[in-house]
Formats: sequence, C-alpha cells, structure tokens
Amino acid sequence: MESVDLIVKADYVLTMSQDLAVIEGGAIAIKGSKIVAVDTASQILQNYSSSKMINGEGKVAFPGLVNTHTHAAMVYFRGLSDDLPLKVWLEEHIWPAEAKWLSPEFVSDAVELACLEMLKAGITAYADMYFFGDAVAQSTKKIGMRAVVGSGVVDFPSATGNNADDYLANADRFIRKWKGDDLIVPSIADHSAYACSPETLKKSKALADRYDVMLQIHLSETEWEVNEMLSRHGRRPAAHLDSLGLLDEHLIAAHCVWLEPDEIELLAKSKTNVSHCIESNLKLASGIAPVVKMLQAGVRVSFGTDGAASNNDLSILSEMSTAAKVHKAVSGDPTALTAKQAMLMATRHGAEALGLGSLCGSLAAGKAADIVLAELNRPHLIPLYDMYSHMVYSMTAADIDTVLIGGRVLLEHRTLASGNEDDIVAKAVQWSKKIKEVHSHS
Amino acid sequence: MESVDLIVKADYVLTMSQDLAVIEGGAIAIKGSKIVAVDTASQILQNYSSSKMINGEGKVAFPGLVNTHTHAAMVYFRGLSDDLPLKVWLEEHIWPAEAKWLSPEFVSDAVELACLEMLKAGITAYADMYFFGDAVAQSTKKIGMRAVVGSGVVDFPSATGNNADDYLANADRFIRKWKGDDLIVPSIADHSAYACSPETLKKSKALADRYDVMLQIHLSETEWEVNEMLSRHGRRPAAHLDSLGLLDEHLIAAHCVWLEPDEIELLAKSKTNVSHCIESNLKLASGIAPVVKMLQAGVRVSFGTDGAASNNDLSILSEMSTAAKVHKAVSGDPTALTAKQAMLMATRHGAEALGLGSLCGSLAAGKAADIVLAELNRPHLIPLYDMYSHMVYSMTAADIDTVLIGGRVLLEHRTLASGNEDDIVAKAVQWSKKIKEVHSHS
Repeated sequence: MESVDLIVKADYVLTMSQDLAVIEGGAIAIKGSKIVAVDTASQILQNYSSSKMINGEGKVAFPGLVNTHTHAAMVYFRGLSDDLPLKVWLEEHIWPAEAKWLSPEFVSDAVELACLEMLKAGITAYADMYFFGDAVAQSTKKIGMRAVVGSGVVDFPSATGNNADDYLANADRFIRKWKGDDLIVPSIADHSAYACSPETLKKSKALADRYDVMLQIHLSETEWEVNEMLSRHGRRPAAHLDSLGLLDEHLIAAHCVWLEPDEIELLAKSKTNVSHCIESNLKLASGIAPVVKMLQAGVRVSFGTDGAASNNDLSILSEMSTAAKVHKAVSGDPTALTAKQAMLMATRHGAEALGLGSLCGSLAAGKAADIVLAELNRPHLIPLYDMYSHMVYSMTAADIDTVLIGGRVLLEHRTLASGNEDDIVAKAVQWSKKIKEVHSHS
Repeated sequence: MESVDLIVKADYVLTMSQDLAVIEGGAIAIKGSKIVAVDTASQILQNYSSSKMINGEGKVAFPGLVNTHTHAAMVYFRGLSDDLPLKVWLEEHIWPAEAKWLSPEFVSDAVELACLEMLKAGITAYADMYFFGDAVAQSTKKIGMRAVVGSGVVDFPSATGNNADDYLANADRFIRKWKGDDLIVPSIADHSAYACSPETLKKSKALADRYDVMLQIHLSETEWEVNEMLSRHGRRPAAHLDSLGLLDEHLIAAHCVWLEPDEIELLAKSKTNVSHCIESNLKLASGIAPVVKMLQAGVRVSFGTDGAASNNDLSILSEMSTAAKVHKAVSGDPTALTAKQAMLMATRHGAEALGLGSLCGSLAAGKAADIVLAELNRPHLIPLYDMYSHMVYSMTAADIDTVLIGGRVLLEHRTLASGNEDDIVAKAVQWSKKIKEVHSHS
C-alpha cells in the first residue's frame, strides 16, 4: 500500500491516452504534481492510500483542455463591437481601444479574468500571443494555470517597442526570465507574415531555435492576407513561411483558413501545429479552415478560442461542438470530425502542439495531474450513452466542477480556490466602465 | 397606486417590443397571467405595489425564448448514436429505437425531461412534432410550459395508426380535446412531403383550416428530399406544397435547407414560417439553409433545436450563437445576421411563427408574463458593453436563473418550482438503462 497525496475518483475517467481507455468507476492517484496511477477505483484503493480524496460521484474526469491560440487580455474587449467588417472592427474599434488602454496593469488584470473564465471552462493550458508578456505570465502563474506565453513581435511601433529589434530584445529578455518555470513556458509571437518582414521572421526563428522555444504566428487567416503575400512576395503565406524556414514542429500557426492542397502538404510534412479557431473565423467571416483535409493529410490540428473580442467566450468545449458540427456540413459528410477526434484535438494533440506532450494532454502515470471533473447529473446531460458525444455535443463550460493543475486544486465546485473571484470581477467591471465611457464617445 | 400580483425587477429589461427598448434598471408589473406595465423600476414602483417582488439584481430580463421545431420525446435518444450518415442513423438506430420504445408512458416521461431542459435554457414556448400528442400535451402542461403540439401524420403504419386516415382521425380528436387550453395549442404535424401523399397533405390542410390550427412539416431538409420530390412530382418540395395550397402563415416549415431563389420568393409571398434548425442540419450534414437570403426576401425565420438526438441539446441560445456565426462565414459578410436580429428571431418572430404573436414574444403591457431572468455576474459575461451581443455570443443555458410563464414562476434560481427534478431525472436514467441494454445488443 503506497501512500499518495491525493486520490481523485470519478464515475468515468476519460484517459485520452494511447489506448483511449474510458474507465467506468475510475480513480487517479497523485503524488506531488504528478499522476502515479490511473485505474479502476477498486484497484487504486487496493494499491494506494491517501488522506485526501476527491469523490467525483456523478462526475466524469478528463485531461485538462488545451487552448492553443488566444489573446487572453482581449477579454476586456468582449462584446465591445460585433457584427462589423474585420477592417472596421480592427481599425475603428479594437486598435484604438488597445492604443488607449494597453499597459502592464491592464494586461495583468485582464489576464486574471481570462484565466478565471478558462479555468471555469476546464482549460488548464493555453497559448497566448500579446504584448506585456511578463504581465501575462505573472497573472497566469498567480492563478496557477499553464501557459505558453508569446512575446509579441511586429515591425511597427507600439507601447512595448519601436521596431522589430526592440521586440526581439524584449523576447530575448522574456525568454531568459521565464525559461525553466514550472507553469510558464516562454515563446515568441510573430504577429503574421504581413506584419513581420522576412528579416524579422528569420531573426525570430533564429532566436526561437537558440533558446529552443515555440514560435507562434497567425497564418492565412483571411483571403486578404493571401493576396497581400502574393503581391508582396509572389508566394502564398504558408509557402512564404516555408521559404524562410519557419515551418516545423516548433511553430504554432493559428487559423490556416485559406490553404491550397500543396500548402496542406507543406504543413503536414513539416509537422507544423495548426490552431483551428472556428468560432472567431466564423464570426469575423474570415472563412472556414479545411480541417477535414488537414486531418486527412496528417496535419496536427488543435483548437484555439482566439481572443474573446472575436468569439465571444474562452471555451474549448464550445469550439469542439461548433467544429464537429460545421465540418460535417461543409464536407457533406456526417462522419467527419467525430466526437472522439474532437476530444483528442482538445486534449492530447493540443498539449503536443504546445510542446507539452510529454507533460500533459492525457491521464497516465508520469504525466502532470492536470485533471478536470465535470458534472453529469444535469438534465441536458441525461441520458448518457456515449461519453465522447456528451463532451462534444452536450456539455458546456458551466458543467465543469473541479480543476486541478499539477496536482493543485484551482477550481473547487465551480469556485476559484487559488484567488478571489470577486476581486477579479470587480477589477474587470471598473476597467470596463472606463473603456465604455471613452468608446461610446469616440 | 395600483395593486398587482408580482413585480419583477432587473438591471436590464430587454423588451424585444416594436421599439426594441432596453431599459436599464427596469421592472415589469404583472397581474394574473399578464404584464400590465414595463418601465423603469422607479416608475413601476411609483405606480404599482405588490406583496411579491423578484429582485433581479445583477440580472437581465427578456421574453421567453421560442423553440419553433422539436421532437421533445427524442431527448431520451440524445447521444444514442452520432457521427453517422443520416440513413444509417435513422434506419439502424433511431427508427428501431422508436419502434421498440414508443408508448404514451415513454413519451410522457421523456417530454418532462425535455421541458425541464428547455425551461432551464430559458425557453417558454415550443412547437412539437411527434406521436402520442396527448402525452406530449399533458407532460408539458404539468410542467407549465406553452406548446404548439402537433398530432403526427404519415402514410405508413406506426404505434398510433395504420394509415393517413387513422392519423387524421387522431388529429381531429386531439384538436377538439385541446382547443382552448390556456397553455397547449393543438396542431397537425405532417411529417414531410415524401412521407405524406398529396392527398394526405390536402386533407391535413383542410382539417387545419376547419379548426383554424397551425400545420407543421419538415421541408427541404436534405438534397435527397428535393431529388425525390422532383422524381415523384416533377416539382421541388416548396413548389409541391404551394401547388397543394399548403404555403401560408399557418404553416411552420422546419429546416428549408435546399431552396432555389424562386422557392424563397414563394415562402416570402405566402408568409410561410420557417424554422431554422442549424445545429441539427450541421450535425447530420444536411446542409446550411440560405437564411441570409430568406431574411432579405422577407421570410419570417425563427429558430428550432430539432430533436435532442440530432443536436444534442435543446438550447435556443446555442442555436442563436451558431447561426449568427455560421451565416457570417457562409455569406462572407460579418454584418450578416446581427445579434439583435438573432434575438428577434428567437423571441418575437418565434412567437409569431407559432401563431402566438399577440400572446407572447415580447415584454409589453397586455402580453402574457413569459419572462426569463439570466445572471450577468459571471466571468464569461464580463465586461458588458452590449446586451444583444451578450445574449447571442456569450450567454449559455446555465446562466438562466428564473423563468415565468403566464405570471407563474416555473424555474427559481435554476431549480424547477413546478415539479420534482430528481424524479424526472431518475425516470430518464431508468429508461436509458433499458434502451442502452437493448441498443448495445442490436
């Protein structure tokens, strides 16, 4: 009988491990930050003892969901402007709001709200692209979540730099500061091939390689971007990145809406990670990414919420549901993007995309105890015939009950255990009053 | 100072009435089953007094959502089979399950679960197409919801009839029994133009006209249906119904996915009500209805969840969100199907589609007190810049707190006040165990 720190029981344990085992009446033994065993509750209780136990009756346990593309701080602009053309939305609403408000304080407060929302939606790890990376990292760490935090790089001036070299110097400093942290993984976030010159992209890649960190980028989000790249470089965006040596398994390419078959091949061969942000792409009318074709070609596709300003929530459950349904209609094939595939993309494949595949993404001995428990005894979750179907087509963020990251309970019965929810909400309301006042007069 | 039975206050009252007023710090005075006044809280409290008050602090009040197409009892088949081609799904899973299980007891118990789920999602009125109409009506009335209940008509035998004349006789009896009820509105539900002969359709229409009730039908759901109608009658489905005199404001046509421009014109001119079931259409890969074109042509479009077996939930909030996003991408226009339009379709236009336009669908003096209160103080609903955006893009069923129908409080702080939730859930679990056992051995 081995003594452990915590045993988590659940009516069902969805492991998402290689054999995709679903254990009825399962349990997970946890020591420190790691899982030591996943098995039936009776086996676990025979082999392990613990003074701390989470009962999980009427609940399903699964690996924390992974959000592979967002701009967490933009949660403060949720619903600030909707139903507008992308150009008007960006140039007349979002960019002026960012120019007016962005500061380390703004980002720090906003990221706390974003983390709270994501945690309550069962997300345990996310990839962020924004500015003031230290503020993003500190707030995320304060809540206790995992994040791959990108230090933003563009060619034009903003509050954090005057030119690409400034941003790259920021990124260099940011990476050295956070490398080796137990929760925060530093990375470089090149905005896009249209906002970063070939030289900037190559310098970023060299920096990422030097420190062995991930590179994040927006890729082929809109048709405009494709045409712009064709006219500037005579190549479509994916081919352009390929020519600069950026496509590899250390790149997270968000969106990838406008792809030709040969570009899909490029992404597959290079093992580039694609973050599919369907709700944002739909809402901004950017288009519908060829996910079914990417999956068929062997591209590693995961889900991203994008920023809350263009979604308008930070729920991967919702992305799964939308994607699994929309790609059936678009491909004309009701067997496309099954519930099981969607769950894999939201967990194991998402963790792999962030370079965290050996750390999290499934429930197995040796992995971090990043575990979510969701309520099953709700009218909209009854009857229960198939757990994957439930997770993808019926469950919503409000069903998430408990969230552990690295063995630490961060959310307990839908309440934040690692911070003060009321404070986070109060700060958000204060900021939003200021933003609203200025915005409604502009 | 006039004495009323109940005053409902809310931080925001979304009236959805002709002027689309949004009242900050609003209140609604209710006498019996009706609204007597909607105004600012200070005005209402100056003019009305009541011993009963719902405080609504931190909440938004809006008219009950309307679900214009479902098969409520199919909630017991939620997730029984997914990710399958329509033919396999129907012929190998759903129809055998129905043949095995359908009975008044099954329908009665299942409809209670469906009503519970819909109520918790802020739905106050729905249109149902199924068999055993008395069981549907009784369970709905027991919970206290409004429904337009269709008595099913097909040409083939089933548990409730041998031929069309049997079903029509059932419908005749059903209409006479329920006509004049305060919550249940009887109607006739012809399955489709492919499951009902021209003669059956004409007889149904004559019966509907005789009693002045609504006719419901599935229309142009799949490409197969269009080809079938072309080969049988030389006309596409909408033109076929038009030739039989079925298209008018008393028809609720569900789906309408495969429409040519001249069919859209037919639906607009005839004032036929279209129930848009986007999530079901996506999930079964039936296609995407040309809703933007229908709206431009003046067709009255509302939202339906379809049955939970093909959705897999009964939430109009979710349909709104999916529709408002998908139609932007499909039309390539981010201004298409705005949040405000979606809310109108889900409330006032939905009520009008069910022939209940003078009774409900907006919050105004003289209308039934069908009122929903939703929680605003949740991380995913902060900040708040625009209430329509919130309702459509961020709110989920779990945010619904209180539901009144005809002045009666049916849901109070997310708990059913008009029945025993645990009993409803327990019955569902029992049925599902039996269904699962047989299904997994078939």
